[in-house]
Amino acid sequence: MTTKIGFIGLGAMGLPLARNLQRKGFPVCAYDIAPDRADAIVALGGSRAGSIAEAAERADVVITCLPATPHVEAVVLGPDGALAHMAAGALLLEMSTIDARGTDKVAAACAARDVAFVDSPIGRLVLHAERGESLFMVGATDADFARVEPLLQAMGKDIHRCGGRGMGSRMKLVNNFLLLTVAQVSAEAVALGTKLGLDIGTILQVTGATTAQNGQLHTLMVNKVLKDDTAPGFTIDLAHKDMTLAMTAAGELRMGLPVGSAAYAVYGAARATDLAGRDYSALLDFACANAGIEPPRT
Amino acid sequence: MTTKIGFIGLGAMGLPLARNLQRKGFPVCAYDIAPDRADAIVALGGSRAGSIAEAAERADVVITCLPATPHVEAVVLGPDGALAHMAAGALLLEMSTIDARGTDKVAAACAARDVAFVDSPIGRLVLHAERGESLFMVGATDADFARVEPLLQAMGKDIHRCGGRGMGSRMKLVNNFLLLTVAQVSAEAVALGTKLGLDIGTILQVTGATTAQNGQLHTLMVNKVLKDDTAPGFTIDLAHKDMTLAMTAAGELRMGLPVGSAAYAVYGAARATDLAGRDYSALLDFACANAGIEPPRT
Amino acid sequence: MTTKIGFIGLGAMGLPLARNLQRKGFPVCAYDIAPDRADAIVALGGSRAGSIAEAAERADVVITCLPATPHVEAVVLGPDGALAHMAAGALLLEMSTIDARGTDKVAAACAARDVAFVDSPIGRLVLHAERGESLFMVGATDADFARVEPLLQAMGKDIHRCGGRGMGSRMKLVNNFLLLTVAQVSAEAVALGTKLGLDIGTILQVTGATTAQNGQLHTLMVNKVLKDDTAPGFTIDLAHKDMTLAMTAAGELRMGLPVGSAAYAVYGAARATDLAGRDYSALLDFACANAGIEPPRT
Amino acid sequence: MTTKIGFIGLGAMGLPLARNLQRKGFPVCAYDIAPDRADAIVALGGSRAGSIAEAAERADVVITCLPATPHVEAVVLGPDGALAHMAAGALLLEMSTIDARGTDKVAAACAARDVAFVDSPIGRLVLHAERGESLFMVGATDADFARVEPLLQAMGKDIHRCGGRGMGSRMKLVNNFLLLTVAQVSAEAVALGTKLGLDIGTILQVTGATTAQNGQLHTLMVNKVLKDDTAPGFTIDLAHKDMTLAMTAAGELRMGLPVGSAAYAVYGAARATDLAGRDYSALLDFACANAGIEPPRT
Repeated sequence: MTTKIGFIGLGAMGLPLARNLQRKGFPVCAYDIAPDRADAIVALGGSRAGSIAEAAERADVVITCLPATPHVEAVVLGPDGALAHMAAGALLLEMSTIDARGTDKVAAACAARDVAFVDSPIGRLVLHAERGESLFMVGATDADFARVEPLLQAMGKDIHRCGGRGMGSRMKLVNNFLLLTVAQVSAEAVALGTKLGLDIGTILQVTGATTAQNGQLHTLMVNKVLKDDTAPGFTIDLAHKDMTLAMTAAGELRMGLPVGSAAYAVYGAARATDLAGRDYSALLDFACANAGIEPPRT
Repeated sequence: MTTKIGFIGLGAMGLPLARNLQRKGFPVCAYDIAPDRADAIVALGGSRAGSIAEAAERADVVITCLPATPHVEAVVLGPDGALAHMAAGALLLEMSTIDARGTDKVAAACAARDVAFVDSPIGRLVLHAERGESLFMVGATDADFARVEPLLQAMGKDIHRCGGRGMGSRMKLVNNFLLLTVAQVSAEAVALGTKLGLDIGTILQVTGATTAQNGQLHTLMVNKVLKDDTAPGFTIDLAHKDMTLAMTAAGELRMGLPVGSAAYAVYGAARATDLAGRDYSALLDFACANAGIEPPRT
Repeated sequence: MTTKIGFIGLGAMGLPLARNLQRKGFPVCAYDIAPDRADAIVALGGSRAGSIAEAAERADVVITCLPATPHVEAVVLGPDGALAHMAAGALLLEMSTIDARGTDKVAAACAARDVAFVDSPIGRLVLHAERGESLFMVGATDADFARVEPLLQAMGKDIHRCGGRGMGSRMKLVNNFLLLTVAQVSAEAVALGTKLGLDIGTILQVTGATTAQNGQLHTLMVNKVLKDDTAPGFTIDLAHKDMTLAMTAAGELRMGLPVGSAAYAVYGAARATDLAGRDYSALLDFACANAGIEPPRT
Repeated sequence: MTTKIGFIGLGAMGLPLARNLQRKGFPVCAYDIAPDRADAIVALGGSRAGSIAEAAERADVVITCLPATPHVEAVVLGPDGALAHMAAGALLLEMSTIDARGTDKVAAACAARDVAFVDSPIGRLVLHAERGESLFMVGATDADFARVEPLLQAMGKDIHRCGGRGMGSRMKLVNNFLLLTVAQVSAEAVALGTKLGLDIGTILQVTGATTAQNGQLHTLMVNKVLKDDTAPGFTIDLAHKDMTLAMTAAGELRMGLPVGSAAYAVYGAARATDLAGRDYSALLDFACANAGIEPPRT
């Protein structure tokens, strides 16, 4: 018997994932606050829900893919939210990038109503979601994982189990902390090299041949800002949100992140400029502007 | 006719390079302030110089591989230094990691005495030098590069031309700034993940599969500190020195390095502990100690 | 006719303020989750409330003095909270140090129920509250200010109007950001001077005679940690909480606080040690421990 | 018998000090690389030296007041420098702000030639020097201090003994580290408050009434940038130089300065803008520009 999906949140990331499910034969009943976002699902043979309740009540698995912690809490836990309408024994697959405390709160509320819970934030970008190449960081019991594995395989391709409930959310937080801080380090290094008179080709060649090599410079910046493309894959505003998750977690855990904090301050400052809505590889342009130089292009 | 080499500075990095030259047939006359360091060259058929002057005076190419800017200035420009004893038309191949201003000063002094000058700092670690796998970042005119290329090929394998005189030194500075700052970012991310309860295997697996991937975590830390090996490849003390070069350059260039400065402060603090002489991958142990957790091992 | 007070939150700061009111003739009905905290008010002729509702329902003015934003929201806005039991036309005097958004949310809820609202966080320390020497940063309309002014005069002595509703909360945030960041700067400067071999007496004398002079070094540290007294006036944990308010506000406002972020990371790191519950002047001991030196004492 | 003075370095700070000496009856023979700088001394009855040697050779006390470490080393230790021309038993009073290592080097060279040495960097600003209100931080033996005390009293008014030779230089470094870092903290706090909608008058009033009070905000900024005056008392460029001294000292001492490093990065960034030559109180304008707000004025 095919798993029936209630999919809530058809944003830039959610829509391609829902489309992948419908295409691979899982019947999707889709809901978004902007009703026409579901048109693409209906066009593929799925259905449109008129409310969160409608998306939730007949689903075997409800999937949420929402912007931030308050949205997830409102959609799942709110007075007329998904959890109130899910059947006992159903499963909530939470795919948003939210804070660990929010994940734990939703997981506990599910447990109290006999609803299974899996957190599985998404790695990589929208373009990867569209190609079915997303990566998933999954926090789940073995039994719950067995239930969602076919869905994750339909939506993407790299599935990483990170531990029990809540650990997917924590892994996402660490992963984005690392990539976003390295992005700023890379921006500073290229700005410094450019100011020293080095050619951008030389900088890329040499750093790519030593252990300095890192994905933020050699994948992200090479493919985006250095080609003069800062149309957002992932905006500086969103990056700032994810850095906030890491800063908050560190605060609650009683630890300092000295370099991360410095990077966080830079994201904060970049948001005061019109780069806020551009791709986060534009940190390079911010660093160069601050240094009084033209940003390099390849 | 074979190029005669005067090699000054047989430290951890200099000695294997000199050995590579002698083995590949370039006659090396070697000098170090510790005379027995030259034994290994003599054993291969080379000769020992009793003074800087002796190493310099009959050489076609003098190679210097020394700890820091003051040593290079003393050895090359000092009252009885190499330059005073080099023949007109000879070439100085300066391979130390020193500041750009120091490189420029030595280059100008050479030009004034009709001695050619090439700067070629070394990438990668001592173990790569021993295997002939060093990387070179070369600042040179075309004519001068043609003269040193066979020597560089005898000593290592990846030769990167970075521009004219002084640009090798500048590229090295940028490269190490990037790798050393990313090393600390990686340490913070692993410490944060560990404190969040994530398994080190999960952290490595997931970050290795996204654009967070970077050489400092996946090459350096995986092969050193995570295997409980902090015997120095590259010490925190040396890393601090190289960070100082970047900070100094940025200061002279009128630019701020907000995240780099934060990383520099961490290197400074780590040097106050007994990790100062350990491998710089031990930044992970420093971050974990500061967070009050056991450092992860694989 | 005398204003009847419902006072909720008899912590280290709240209790002396409530005592001051009762002593100066304002009848206080006091509530705390630890019922015996109200004994001191009863002993002065006041009364004890058995619930938040009881404290709120007959009061002309309800005063809240609570640890953090979630407590204020629960106590005021919760299902059986103060606001639900306050009479139309009564006034809520909110004296906690909470975030600006929390203050605005409570103020809006009050307005919706025809309850007046004033925010007035407290400056200075517990010992000042006990002496009736507290400072208040007041956000209020003129009419509301006229109602609370006699109460503030009974509780403390320096009353600063900071603008309309919510501006007291904002001023407190800025004030603590300044003093807490300067505290860490002072700690670094003394640690640096000590490491350079300067006598602590010299450091204090000279910095006290130039524009470097600042209250964190010359009032706080001189009277606490330098006298080997780190019994908490204001703990590092609480300081971290207040720094979090500033960081959060800056994030929402789209601005970076490069030096504040670095100070925040230090507070975070200090909380991982057993200094977490000590007075925040103990940042000096943290800085000296990190530098590998004995902390100076006078 | 009156002490004969050779005064070398008639810059913004040196000239008023030399004038004070000549006015109070000490015969000054003044030298500067710009010969007309000595006109003001000649006008008061002093004399002009045509060379460093001439200023040095008949002086009982040679005073140097120069921009940075290399100038002091060149002027004092250079081939035709002051030390080579000073009589045995004479005294060098070094008043520049230079690094501790430079001070120690010059002191040692003096000792080797039987010349006494006192370091006495200057606190406060040029306007204080002009009024005879400078502060001095003196490193000296008791005997040497007795020789310079009348001169210091003629030049300024607050004389602080900081320990033996070299300790004046160290105290200056710490003092400026403190004031310059606090200046940036103050700038951030005012920018944050302004962005939160607080009036600058409120910010000043409240922070002036709590322990947040500090000289950088309440003396410096109130009298300069907040009055729309950023004509340099002390430029951002000079401030950056002094921050460099502290960073260098910390590096050599094996300690991290996490907040100081962040402040240093800000000074570095401010130098990339046209604020570089403005008064350092203009950090406030830099912080506000970065936050996208109009800087407050009183």
